[in-house]
Amino acid sequence: MFTHKTPRVAAARRLTTRSGRSKAGRFLAEGAQAVGEALASAHRVQELFVTPVAAQRHGTLVRRARDRGITVSAVTERAGELLSETVTPQGLVAVCDSVDVPLPAALAGQAHLVAVLVGVTDPGNAGTVVRTADAAGADAVVFLGDSVDVHNGKSVRASAGSVFHVPIARAERLDDVLAACRSAGLTTVAADGKAHQDLVGYQRSARLGRPTAWLFGSEAHGLDGHTVAAADEAVRVPIYGGAESLNLASAATVCLYSSAMARRQEGRSD
Amino acid sequence: MFTHKTPRVAAARRLTTRSGRSKAGRFLAEGAQAVGEALASAHRVQELFVTPVAAQRHGTLVRRARDRGITVSAVTERAGELLSETVTPQGLVAVCDSVDVPLPAALAGQAHLVAVLVGVTDPGNAGTVVRTADAAGADAVVFLGDSVDVHNGKSVRASAGSVFHVPIARAERLDDVLAACRSAGLTTVAADGKAHQDLVGYQRSARLGRPTAWLFGSEAHGLDGHTVAAADEAVRVPIYGGAESLNLASAATVCLYSSAMARRQEGRSD
Repeated sequence: MFTHKTPRVAAARRLTTRSGRSKAGRFLAEGAQAVGEALASAHRVQELFVTPVAAQRHGTLVRRARDRGITVSAVTERAGELLSETVTPQGLVAVCDSVDVPLPAALAGQAHLVAVLVGVTDPGNAGTVVRTADAAGADAVVFLGDSVDVHNGKSVRASAGSVFHVPIARAERLDDVLAACRSAGLTTVAADGKAHQDLVGYQRSARLGRPTAWLFGSEAHGLDGHTVAAADEAVRVPIYGGAESLNLASAATVCLYSSAMARRQEGRSD
Repeated sequence: MFTHKTPRVAAARRLTTRSGRSKAGRFLAEGAQAVGEALASAHRVQELFVTPVAAQRHGTLVRRARDRGITVSAVTERAGELLSETVTPQGLVAVCDSVDVPLPAALAGQAHLVAVLVGVTDPGNAGTVVRTADAAGADAVVFLGDSVDVHNGKSVRASAGSVFHVPIARAERLDDVLAACRSAGLTTVAADGKAHQDLVGYQRSARLGRPTAWLFGSEAHGLDGHTVAAADEAVRVPIYGGAESLNLASAATVCLYSSAMARRQEGRSD
């Protein structure tokens, strides 16, 4: 049985840091849900570490991994803990190839709905947006500039497996993203709490259901003025009560679902 | 200066537990945002504890408290830490009277939109739903049965001050809540992932903008069959992509905002 000192386990542990993930081009998916979604997806799983307790509990998953020709290694409870990024280690950790693809690949085909995260730093929020984007049928999620790494353990967990469903791209420059979205036929829309028009007005003008790339800013500051000005449109989520704002994940949920539902409502096929 | 052994500080510390809050009918609001919203609301603030560092940083808030005749007590950093329920203590903690009101009071007046949490156990999720409900202009949030205590530190923080804006009621029996909502002219709608009709179909039939009480189930299991059957309608949030579901707060966000926006879209005044 592998311990935390076994070189392959030690190498996997380095994937709990951003620089380790970046160097290896790999990340960790922990727990039955994430591992199950990784195995069910087309993404490459390199290796599966499993503690004796988890092997008993998740026999089907372990067999499925073996059937796919993936190396399954038994590890000690201590190694399982050290490979874990959660408070309650699951004892089941897969080493996966990074899921992100180049921007043009993420936008290939007929894109209808894209979420662009501009400087989003909270990994849980980022993962939740990926999950919501997936549920809303988004074609891609783009992580721009200094946004958090989607392969962070907290992001992967909050995404509830959606990092393996929806194409994810990383991009450095806003202009590149806006240009790529426009070439793909998408209107770029900044979600901005200070925008003049709100979602209801935007919906009335029958523009909400159009192919759209939504831009979302950071939890603390939203989008900066330059980004808002560079987008084709700026729209705010209306606040009807006493709250100052919505949290980022909630605002993104309203925007992405409003677009997805308006498209079906309007019976659009573009 | 008060230490953590000073009886008033020790009494306040008991408010970090549910039984302590329940006995005293009070809870703690921590940090500049929560304290500011408490002071700006009609809710009664009994006392404010502040560390020397926080007193310097939040001079305006401290003066506003004193102007309202609230006792402001300087406490040691150690006492500030022990009164805190966060990883990074804010040094500013208000003792507030509980915010919940009887169900009939919460539904008094012309209610258009209500959120009912049925067995929601995660305090962060509950607080996020209160914030979203507030932003969507909801008239009340009802915590049913064994749902988490909204006065939990994590709920208060996640609500970002909204526990002080939107009327909150606690109720023990589902039947009482359904009856009270119906008397208030609200259609009761179960948010149920297995429902036959989805939000888009429901919107098409022009029922989404009607006065509505949304019922939301727990993070893990959703609503039970009995609750779904007892509600007037059951509607599911459509899942267009590969995600299995939305998290509770996201699902509630889609439902509450869809209703709020549909009402404005349809120009309803009921």
